Amino acid sequence: MGLWELIEGHLGTPLGFRAAAAAAGIKQKPGALDLALIVSDGERTSAAGMFTTNVVAAAPVAFSRQNLAKSGGYARAIIVNSGNANAGTGRGGRRTAEGTARAAARLIGTLPQEVLICSTGVIGVPLKTALIREQLPALVERLSPENAAEVPHAIMTTDTFAKSCVLRSQYRGRTAHLAGVAKGAGMIHPRMATMLSFITTDAAITPPLLARLLRSAVWQSFNRVSVDGDTSTNDTVLILANGYAGIKVGAANAAWFEGGLVKLCQTLAKMIARDGEGATKLVTIDVRGARSEHDAERAARAIANSPLVKTAIAGNDPNWGRILCAAGYSGARFDPNKVDIFVNRLALCRRGLDAGFDEAAAKKELDQKELIIRLHFHQGRGSARMWTCDLTHGYIDINAAYRT
Amino acid sequence: MGLWELIEGHLGTPLGFRAAAAAAGIKQKPGALDLALIVSDGERTSAAGMFTTNVVAAAPVAFSRQNLAKSGGYARAIIVNSGNANAGTGRGGRRTAEGTARAAARLIGTLPQEVLICSTGVIGVPLKTALIREQLPALVERLSPENAAEVPHAIMTTDTFAKSCVLRSQYRGRTAHLAGVAKGAGMIHPRMATMLSFITTDAAITPPLLARLLRSAVWQSFNRVSVDGDTSTNDTVLILANGYAGIKVGAANAAWFEGGLVKLCQTLAKMIARDGEGATKLVTIDVRGARSEHDAERAARAIANSPLVKTAIAGNDPNWGRILCAAGYSGARFDPNKVDIFVNRLALCRRGLDAGFDEAAAKKELDQKELIIRLHFHQGRGSARMWTCDLTHGYIDINAAYRT
Repeated sequence: MGLWELIEGHLGTPLGFRAAAAAAGIKQKPGALDLALIVSDGERTSAAGMFTTNVVAAAPVAFSRQNLAKSGGYARAIIVNSGNANAGTGRGGRRTAEGTARAAARLIGTLPQEVLICSTGVIGVPLKTALIREQLPALVERLSPENAAEVPHAIMTTDTFAKSCVLRSQYRGRTAHLAGVAKGAGMIHPRMATMLSFITTDAAITPPLLARLLRSAVWQSFNRVSVDGDTSTNDTVLILANGYAGIKVGAANAAWFEGGLVKLCQTLAKMIARDGEGATKLVTIDVRGARSEHDAERAARAIANSPLVKTAIAGNDPNWGRILCAAGYSGARFDPNKVDIFVNRLALCRRGLDAGFDEAAAKKELDQKELIIRLHFHQGRGSARMWTCDLTHGYIDINAAYRT
Repeated sequence: MGLWELIEGHLGTPLGFRAAAAAAGIKQKPGALDLALIVSDGERTSAAGMFTTNVVAAAPVAFSRQNLAKSGGYARAIIVNSGNANAGTGRGGRRTAEGTARAAARLIGTLPQEVLICSTGVIGVPLKTALIREQLPALVERLSPENAAEVPHAIMTTDTFAKSCVLRSQYRGRTAHLAGVAKGAGMIHPRMATMLSFITTDAAITPPLLARLLRSAVWQSFNRVSVDGDTSTNDTVLILANGYAGIKVGAANAAWFEGGLVKLCQTLAKMIARDGEGATKLVTIDVRGARSEHDAERAARAIANSPLVKTAIAGNDPNWGRILCAAGYSGARFDPNKVDIFVNRLALCRRGLDAGFDEAAAKKELDQKELIIRLHFHQGRGSARMWTCDLTHGYIDINAAYRT
């Protein structure tokens, strides 16, 4: 079993996948890509998904979840639009998802239950089925491995860069690929599959094992990102596995495959944190020495979500008191008098007290595009990481005017 | 039993209370009031407190909680400083609180265990006991009912206005008073006694009943305010009741007294929301028709905490989708297809769908100093309110540079 190495590519790099994007006029901006279709050539393509836990789930979330149940974990196609979340749209929204899936299934030559639908964008505005259906024939016509490079652009909303990652590894002389795209930016909060991400792989894997490994990878990646603590109505992660690489994933090599999937998802998750609305920094929160992993995660999550910590980081302020305070209300059990806090390798706090650091040096450590806040509780072996960003004027600018 | 009416006054308006403030040099700004002393003339003054649930509780929190336990719920004096939270200060911080209480007790002529201590300000910087002790004799000298008007100014940090409220009511021909001050601004999140507030009353009430009524009032007021979702290390609400009005509060009139206490605390709580860091609006979140009060409160709390809702309100954007979405991830159980959402009296969403409102009219409703977001779940009789504010550039400005 080889390592999973990062390579250039796109969702069409794994064998047997084609995709394309189009400008369907769903976004207000004319000519902006806002519709994408991803298709597997494998007639028996395993599929798995993780969806938002928000009770106000969007129509496409309910629809895709149901399709995966109906098909027993198989899917041939994913259709995704940006510019409209098809959430808060009632029965009409449901009909839009169904109509889109039926039309696409006919054109591709598969069953509607093997088509998964995703939407992202404004909530509460009806999504016109016609806009999507008009584009479908041309989209199917343009399907190719190369055009898959368009997909991450078509799913962007307030994202400032397209998010894509491709990995390759060897297994018994054969080559497998994992490719993923994601969109993030705002309304990003973990505790479920977060935001949108689509993953393709040419490994062969049964639906139940695929679902189990996806859940585990999402928990270690997308569920460890926080931009603003808001959990969207549309969060979805989908994976398609068509087996074209001729490598079967089972008990013997599940850990190998999971390693790649975790690496892929973490790479995309960090891109999402780095591109948080208004963000200028990617911040890793690393908690160690907690009584349990659960305690470490609670503390890391509270720090990653704290507006006071995030504004301090924006201002290059080594305000370790706010970090300790957030850990304190997280629900994690620890003795404040044992806590060490570092920014990168510089100690800010030792055993709960000011470490007597040099202010200018600390400001310099904080004034980076990428930084790590490390806490050590000295109470046990529990550890956890979260990825977040700083909180700036940009977040306010984007969100005080997103809808209009 | 009369109503509790709002009157002009201060912490010295209830009979038998004196107070004064001083500039001790704890705040960086020369001449700024940063120390206050509140004293009851009653030798047997009941006292109760609600404190932060943060495990990183500041030294004065631990000290005051312990003193209330030691004295069995009696206290003669409260000393409060702003500019330094005496949190994250270890054993030295504890000694500062103890030394301050001892010195004050000697000057006032009471036991150290009847002195309560509060601090607010920066975390992790040692608080110099000497700065406080030097001022104590002059402070005691200046104690008077009138000088109590200085107290709300001395406890301000990033607050933009002093917060004070006085109520008066009749009971069987006698007059009782309730007076309160508060500070808020940032690091404001409920789930415990929030921020600092000090209350005096000349009613007579036993410590256990006083503690019970304070807990209930705090739950309906300070615990229903959210500015940024951060729970401070120093949150404290203290009440002193000296009995000088000659009215005994017991089973017969506890509801009357509690009504006044709730009104006082809610008035102060709303002032805190209105003065949230960078806030330009006081926003009431009112949830009704939930399956239970608990469900209503969860939904109201999630909406009040949502950065996306709060930035939309800042931008006068009638983005009801974000409101519905926040309710959706709150943990409250409800059917999204039954939800109505209003801003003031204007319907934005009916039965989970866009109500077809006029955009300009909605913007006008949102463009107010005070507004109410109302949700009706149509699922039961549970209801709850929260008070919050909009999220603006001002919050970032204040918090990216607070410490330095």
